[in-house]
Amino acid sequence: MTDRLAIREAEASDADKIWAMIEPVIRAGESYAVSQEADREEGLAYWFAPRREVFVAEVDGKPVGTYFIQPNQKGGGSHVANGGYLTAAGSLGRGIGRAMCLHSLRYAKARGYRAMQFNFVLSTNERAVRLWESLGFSIAGRLPEAYLHPRLGYVDVFVMHRFL
Amino acid sequence: MTDRLAIREAEASDADKIWAMIEPVIRAGESYAVSQEADREEGLAYWFAPRREVFVAEVDGKPVGTYFIQPNQKGGGSHVANGGYLTAAGSLGRGIGRAMCLHSLRYAKARGYRAMQFNFVLSTNERAVRLWESLGFSIAGRLPEAYLHPRLGYVDVFVMHRFL
Repeated sequence: MTDRLAIREAEASDADKIWAMIEPVIRAGESYAVSQEADREEGLAYWFAPRREVFVAEVDGKPVGTYFIQPNQKGGGSHVANGGYLTAAGSLGRGIGRAMCLHSLRYAKARGYRAMQFNFVLSTNERAVRLWESLGFSIAGRLPEAYLHPRLGYVDVFVMHRFL
Repeated sequence: MTDRLAIREAEASDADKIWAMIEPVIRAGESYAVSQEADREEGLAYWFAPRREVFVAEVDGKPVGTYFIQPNQKGGGSHVANGGYLTAAGSLGRGIGRAMCLHSLRYAKARGYRAMQFNFVLSTNERAVRLWESLGFSIAGRLPEAYLHPRLGYVDVFVMHRFL
């Protein structure tokens, strides 16, 4: 299904589309460390945090996912990129996340980054962990009980890394 | 030398004292992921980033160190604290860092945090790594070549963690 997939930089006019995709994920509280009660303003401020470049994935013009990329640290740590990816609820299992990650890896390499790091991958998010591992990431750290999962209680979190 | 040490919350009027302590560390570029060229405004904005509580350590009223504490993540990750510590150049080796960390651990526990995590401890900062290990922290992750050290080139970085 990804042959008609297009990934482009987000514009200000994409705010509604992006909020519609990220709101259910924020409400579920099973992926990102942001308040489950975050409103539209807070949610978009999180996704569009300073220094982040945000992209939108569309199939035939319909939004199916979004991701951001940013330097993971400033100064001497700015050669490592950080990314966050989110597939729209109705588009899971279609390779959108994989396509966005591959796009981000190419983009990061072209921008001169030397590595990509994910700081906070919930160990219970098995689909994501498998996907990142299949794309060359390895687990660089395990943060014990670092996330209070709404259904599962305190769960471990992975730091994942790959060179570019 | 720490018997006359007092640690208190920083006030706006401490900005000059704190900048005087953090500027040499920022210029050296061997501890924190912030631009070595950061000016006073940028340096203080880093140390006093939103959500951070900042403390000052003084001996007989003379500033000898500063630290901050903050939730390491929002939402389901907000039960883990993050801290950063800095001892003034002339006061190294006197137990100031240890005293500040112990203060922060007590403070974090009193505030209901369940753990403390350091996200970015340079592996070359052996004094700090030894100190954190002596205070019960362990290495939860190793980020390969995540910091461009001004003298040593790309060096590994540790994620360190302890429960409270």
